[in-house]
Formats: sequence, structure tokens, C-alpha cells
Amino acid sequence: MNYQTVTEALNALRLLEEKQSALSHAMNMIVYDAATAAPKNTALGRGKTLGILSEYMYELIAAPENMEWIAYLHEHEDELTAEEKRRIEMTEKSCQQISRIPQNEYTEYQMLLNDAQTVWEKAKNENDFPAFAPYLEKIVAFNRKFAGYYNPAMAPYDALLNEFEEGMTMDVLDPFFEKLRSAIVPLLEKIRLAEPIDDSFLHRSFPVEKQKQCAEYLMAVLQIDRGYCGLAESEHPFTDNFNNKDVRITTHFYENNLTSALYSVIHEGGHAIYELACDDRYNQTAIAGGVSMGIHESQSRFFENIIGRSEPFIHAVYPEIRACFPEQLSDVSEEAFYRAVNRAEPSLIRTEADELTYCLHVMIRYELEKKLIAGTLAVGDLPSEWNRLYREYLGVEVPDDTHGCLQDTHWSGGSFGYFPSYALGSAYGAQMLAFMKKDIPDFEEKLRVADLADIKGWLGEHIHRHASLYQPSVLFENACGSFDPSYYVDYLTGKFKKLYHI
Amino acid sequence: MNYQTVTEALNALRLLEEKQSALSHAMNMIVYDAATAAPKNTALGRGKTLGILSEYMYELIAAPENMEWIAYLHEHEDELTAEEKRRIEMTEKSCQQISRIPQNEYTEYQMLLNDAQTVWEKAKNENDFPAFAPYLEKIVAFNRKFAGYYNPAMAPYDALLNEFEEGMTMDVLDPFFEKLRSAIVPLLEKIRLAEPIDDSFLHRSFPVEKQKQCAEYLMAVLQIDRGYCGLAESEHPFTDNFNNKDVRITTHFYENNLTSALYSVIHEGGHAIYELACDDRYNQTAIAGGVSMGIHESQSRFFENIIGRSEPFIHAVYPEIRACFPEQLSDVSEEAFYRAVNRAEPSLIRTEADELTYCLHVMIRYELEKKLIAGTLAVGDLPSEWNRLYREYLGVEVPDDTHGCLQDTHWSGGSFGYFPSYALGSAYGAQMLAFMKKDIPDFEEKLRVADLADIKGWLGEHIHRHASLYQPSVLFENACGSFDPSYYVDYLTGKFKKLYHI
Repeated sequence: MNYQTVTEALNALRLLEEKQSALSHAMNMIVYDAATAAPKNTALGRGKTLGILSEYMYELIAAPENMEWIAYLHEHEDELTAEEKRRIEMTEKSCQQISRIPQNEYTEYQMLLNDAQTVWEKAKNENDFPAFAPYLEKIVAFNRKFAGYYNPAMAPYDALLNEFEEGMTMDVLDPFFEKLRSAIVPLLEKIRLAEPIDDSFLHRSFPVEKQKQCAEYLMAVLQIDRGYCGLAESEHPFTDNFNNKDVRITTHFYENNLTSALYSVIHEGGHAIYELACDDRYNQTAIAGGVSMGIHESQSRFFENIIGRSEPFIHAVYPEIRACFPEQLSDVSEEAFYRAVNRAEPSLIRTEADELTYCLHVMIRYELEKKLIAGTLAVGDLPSEWNRLYREYLGVEVPDDTHGCLQDTHWSGGSFGYFPSYALGSAYGAQMLAFMKKDIPDFEEKLRVADLADIKGWLGEHIHRHASLYQPSVLFENACGSFDPSYYVDYLTGKFKKLYHI
Repeated sequence: MNYQTVTEALNALRLLEEKQSALSHAMNMIVYDAATAAPKNTALGRGKTLGILSEYMYELIAAPENMEWIAYLHEHEDELTAEEKRRIEMTEKSCQQISRIPQNEYTEYQMLLNDAQTVWEKAKNENDFPAFAPYLEKIVAFNRKFAGYYNPAMAPYDALLNEFEEGMTMDVLDPFFEKLRSAIVPLLEKIRLAEPIDDSFLHRSFPVEKQKQCAEYLMAVLQIDRGYCGLAESEHPFTDNFNNKDVRITTHFYENNLTSALYSVIHEGGHAIYELACDDRYNQTAIAGGVSMGIHESQSRFFENIIGRSEPFIHAVYPEIRACFPEQLSDVSEEAFYRAVNRAEPSLIRTEADELTYCLHVMIRYELEKKLIAGTLAVGDLPSEWNRLYREYLGVEVPDDTHGCLQDTHWSGGSFGYFPSYALGSAYGAQMLAFMKKDIPDFEEKLRVADLADIKGWLGEHIHRHASLYQPSVLFENACGSFDPSYYVDYLTGKFKKLYHI
């Protein structure tokens, strides 16, 4: 049809957004069920349904008439609000994304990823990198090629980064990681020589039922409205959001690890707080929900580490945690608990790393994937280069590829450019902390009684409510000025020097 | 398009069936999540998504081109298999169903039901039938009218029955219920004079965690593959099936009621056994899954009552149940347990009724809704007529409408003609029992060791595997000959006379 008025064209946009939201909701629901509730052998029927729903999505997004009203709206940009323009921008992006890779290459790539997943799992279990290497080579080659489709004017790795963190480039990340490296590696050296922290009591036996009580308590402390946010169990913790009034977080309880589940609840709780506080007006639009991986991780890691592992917060919540486990924690003081949950110890596995060393794990992946995409590191040399960097940055010897370059699922899943957002998020969070403290003079006092209202208020005002209205960098700058990694470095240095008396 | 070959037209059928299956899967998934896992205030976003998925379903089913290939296939029926013909028949039915009620009346009716649900809940809570009566009047009037759209050649109530049990009419049901009434009402009179059975120990305190263990044990006894069948909790027990390899049942645990959860697991387990044993070939077709409400209830009530409350089965499973609750059941013998779970006691609430009196509750609803639809009973007279029938058939005084004609959700939900399938199912099950015993000479011995393989084998062969390939009456007759309620009456009379020594 020919669009005669802006209202007509905006209605077409709205209709597409609503259908897209509904199809996403349905697909996410099926995937969420698979991870939390579905019996284990039900993948076949789920796959068929997801396939058909994806076709519906494809038909919706790839419909040629979309380009007609998008073109019409571009011609009438002066009549549009900033919000409408951003919705159009994001929608146009999805429409283009779906057609930017030739169909046959896309199909071939999906089949490759499907096979690669199985091969990677087996290779990881059997410490057999050579079995996985040919698949990784092909995945890297595809990503290099796709980067050219995404944005031929950018360096390939920048184009990939942009998929996860709109506007992010190596120009920002290189000095960021360099600054981290030069501060943290020497700090870790000193910690290695300091008095070690005992955290053995965190691995006593903590009955899961009691841990669940504790998790509920922490949800209450985070002031997460359980009427809008579920808490379920899954193999790996994650957050899913169907809309800003229906968010689900998951955790995994281990009897011999008290903090794994509890801190994952706080971490995923941070993601949930973000989604739940997005303004209602953006629901069912192309700008619903959190804006990027990096901003999302800034919220989850802010609550997990900056709040959750802080002295005043532990002062507030430890009595209740101890009350859940009077026997197990009878001999553990508040200070001992605080020190234990912050113990910094170079290790092999990223997902189990502490707050300080975590970003070094991320940095290693950043350096390696940058080179893989640039073609300056051959896949065959990945294990030795991985092991060399672990030695250099973390001072640990990687015993095998299972505990080395085969540990993460990202590359076998085709995600290059994703890892940096983990570290970026932490750094964003530290800068937000500095700015929020200016606005909340009694920040510490509030935290000492676990009163998070002002903190959530500040984040809600500056970050959450805007959903995806602004590009991540714009959103961040509006809240905290230019991104400056010094805040993060200062935060880490200050905290861990004090902790280790160095 | 013009269909040139049968293959082409069958492909169009297949495509529609697959899309219909996928949309159903997605919608059921969202509804299932709502009942089992979703936070309580998440209805709004779910409603929007379900609305849009329903529109997709409507567009799929109501597409005018469907009629083209259906017409083409009708012209070439001699080239089709019986299975293909049935798939076409069922698909044509959905296509016609969606257009048989004028759109404006359908919308008005949906809005009425939506309001009626809220009004009914409030009226039930407040024992205020007059508040609900005007809604019920409108619902009855709509159903009478719709019956004319469904099949103008039939009596309105027969047309409604046919919606739930294809081919069922009052000609079958009237003598069926009359036979039940004339056998059970006098039997109940005798039971009232007999020595009462004590079931008070079933209401001791049974910790839910232990009940869950017991439920798992019963799932194992029923040989339900947990890889394909989930067990979750919900307010009211139900079964949902996404396909024959992904079935979910739910239950509700009450600490002071041992048998509520356990027998609902066996009941829903019966539904699940049916769905799981449908032949793979019917997945994603219009004849996937159980064929009717009545046949489905025949399976659930067969396992719950005929198997689950039988002497030999209880002999087999009671030791394990007692082992779960050694304290609570230490003074309860196998015989006492058997008698307690079969205690027959006229009562007010259908969903809590025992095996013997249950069908009287159903009969009362059948008589009343038949008259409501015929217009020979005014809605205003429903409470007094309800109470009269409870007095006459069950010998109980209804104290108020909350415990009387407001107790069920069916009528406020617009379901007229649904109730009889509960009683029909029980009767089908009793006739199946008689026929299966002929084929399984050591039926009792098998049951005494809870070996259900032959029983499930018989049902699988004669009922389950056929999914919806045959009309329910044809399926039943192929397995057990003409429907004859004597089997059910004989079964009930024999069992309860022996139980009460009368």
C-alpha cells in the first residue's frame, strides 16, 4: 500500500513491533521452559515449533512492504519525535539484519554452529582441541566475512563488537584493557605475597532448602517485586524478560557452595531490576528492554559486586544469612565472611573467578578473538597462546584445554565480540557508583541497613527507565559523562589494597 | 493458487497442520507457564501475546485459500487414505468452526465470558447467585443460538454435546444416566445404613516433601517416562500435551490430605499415558493427541479408580506409601487403607466426590444444563432445582449456592455439554476393563505386583496409538463393542457391595 500519512505509517510500525514482541515472547517462553522445567528428552518437538515461529518472524521482518513505510517515515523525519525515530532506527536494523547475510550462507552457518556445539561439548569433555579446531576455523572465517556484511567500512572485529555493544570499538577497548592490565597484574603480584584469606567455611554443607530461604531474603532486600519476577532453577543462572512486568531469573544451588547461588541471585537480580524498571511506554516496541550487553552487565555486576560484596551491605545482610545457617556459620564473623566472599585468587575458570581477576579472564579472550578475526592468530596456535596469556596475566599454568581454551561456549556458538561487555559492564558500574555517591550523600549509611531505595532510584532515573531509547554510549554519558576506566581501576585498587592490607 | 495434484494439495494441508501445531504449542506453553511458574501479576503481557498469537491462528485457519485445496481434495477422495481423509475432515472442521459464528457475536460472547468469570468468582465467594444470574442467562442464550450455528439439524443440546464428544446425543445419555441413577441411588441408601468407613487417618499431617517422593514413586509405577513427562504444581491439577513426546501433568499438595495429590497424580498420569502413547506418525497433524473428552476421562479415571483404588493395586503400592510415612501410617493396615480411599459418602462438592457418588454429581449437572438449554428451566430457578436434585439423588441438604450451583467454573466459562464426558469416561473405562480382562488372564496377579505392562499394552493397542484417527464411538466400538452402561453399573455395584458388606 501507499502510506498517505505519518499516522498510517506509524501504525504499520506499531503493528510490526507488537507482532515481533509476541513472537519473541512465545519463543523465549519455550526456551525458558526448556531451561527450567521441560523434561529432558523434549527437544525435538520444541525445535519444530521454534523453527516455525522463526519462519513467522522472518516473514514479518523481511516483508518488502516494511521498506515502504520506513522510507515514508524517513521522508517525514521532521514530524517525528526522538522516540519514534529511535523505534524506526531499531526496527530498520532488524529488517536489514535479516537480509544482510545471503540466505545460503546463513543456513550453512547455522548448520555449522549446530554441529560445532556438539563437537565442542565432546572436545571439552575429552580435552581434544584438535577435534574442535576445524570447526572453530570455519566459524572464525564466517564471522570475518559477516563483519564485512555488517559494516564494510569498519575493521571486522569492530563490526562484530558493534553487534553486542552499539558503537563500541577497539579504539576504546585497547586502552581500557591496557589500563586494567597495568593496574591489576602488579596488584595481584602483591596479593600473592600477602596473608591469604580463608574461605573454606563457604564450602561446608549448606542444605539447599535453607539456601532457597536465603535467596528469597535477598530478593526482598533487592526490593524485587515477586509479583512480576520469578526465581527458578536451571543448570546455569540467567535472566529472561518477556516484558517489563514479567521477568524471570534463575540460579543453581550447590550444597557445598554457599555463595555461588546467593551471588548469582544478586547478579541476575541486577538484570531483573533493570528490566523491571524500564518505562511502561516502551513495552511492545522496538526499544523495549535493556539497551546492550555492556549496560546490562553494568547493572548485574554492580549489584553483585559493588553492592553485594561491599562491607556495609554484608554488615546489613550477614545476620540474616547466619540465622539461616546457625551451625555452619557459628564461628564465622561478619568480617571473616566479608573477606571470604572477596578472596582474590588467580584461577583457571572465568565463570568461577573473583571480582578482581575476572576482568583478566575477559581480557585474555578479547586479545585472542581480536587476533583470530584479524587473522594474525591461527586457530591451531590458540591453545599455546591462551596458556601463555594465563601464565603472564594470572600466573597460572593451564593443565589442559578443557580448563583452558575449550572452557567457554561463546566461540562454538559463534559469538565474537561478546566477551568485552563483561569487563565493560564492571567498569561502567564503578563509574556509576562514583556519580551516584555525589547525589546520595548518605550512601554508606543506607547500605549499612540494606536500604537500596535511593540507589535503585538513581539507577532507575539515569539508566533503567530509558530502556533502549538511547545508544548505550549516549545513555552512559548522560548519566556519568565520558567513559573513564580510571573509576574502575581506582575502585578495584582501593578495595583490594584495603582488603589485603597492602 | 490452483492445485494441480493431490500431492500439492496434501502439502498445503501439511503446512497448515504444522503451523497450527506450532501456534498451539506456543499458546499452550504460555498458558501452562501461567498455571505453574509465572509470577502472579504477569497476566497483562501474557494476554497481549496470546491475543496476537490467536490472530495468527485465525489468519491461518480462516484463509480463504484453505477452501480451495480442501475442495480439490474432496474431488479426489478416492486417491486418499483413510488417515488423510480424517486429517482433512478435522482440519475442515477447524476452518468452519472459526467462521460459523458471526464475528461480532463471537467478540460479544468472549467479552461476556471475560466479565462472567470475574462476576462468578465474586458471586461464589459471597454466596450471591442473583449477581451471577443475569450473566448466566446471557451465556445460556448464546449457547442455544450457537448450537443452531453448529448444527441446525440437531436439538441444541445435542449440538453442544457434539462439541465435546463427537457423535454423542441425549438418546445415548438419557438411558445411560437413568441406568446409573436407578442403580446407585438405592445402593447409596444401603451404604448409609452400613457400618461407616473410617478415613480420618488420611487427614493426618503428611509433609509435602514426602508426598512428592510418593508422587515420584507412583509415576514410576505407572511407567511414565519422565524424560517425556513433567510433574509440576498448580492450583488445580491438569494435563497439558505439546506433542506425544512432551506432556506435563500437575498436582496440588495438601499437607492434611494424603490422597488428594496422590490420586490426582494417577488421574493426570492416565491422561499422560494416553498422550504419550499416541503414534508418532500423527504428531503435528490435525489428528494428533487424544480424540475426545470422554475417551480422555476414560483413561484418567481408569487409572485413578479402576486401577488406583483397586484391592490388588493397593496391595502392591501400599508398602511403599507406608514407608514414606512410617509414623503417620504405622497403625493403618493395607485393608484399612484400601477401604479409606474408597469410602463412599454423599457430599456437596463434585471435585471432592468419591468414585461411587461422582457420577451422581455429573448427572445432576446434565439434567440441569439440558433443561437450561432447552429453555424448560429458568436460570432463576436453578438454585432450588439444584438443591432438590442433591436432596433426591444424594440425600444431602445444600446449605448455600457457594456449595451448590455456584461451585463449578464450567458454566461461567461457557461450557455446556462438557459435564457428561466425566461420567461417560468412567463408564467407558469399566467396559474396557471387562474386555481387557478377557485378553489378560492373569490380570489380578499382574496388578498385585503393580506390573502394568499388559494393561498399558492393551490400552495402547486398542485406544492410545490411534490418537484422533477414529471418531470416539468408532474407536470405542472397535475396542469393546457397543457402549453398554451395564459394565459400569455392575462394576460399581460389585465393588461397593463387597466393600460395605451389603
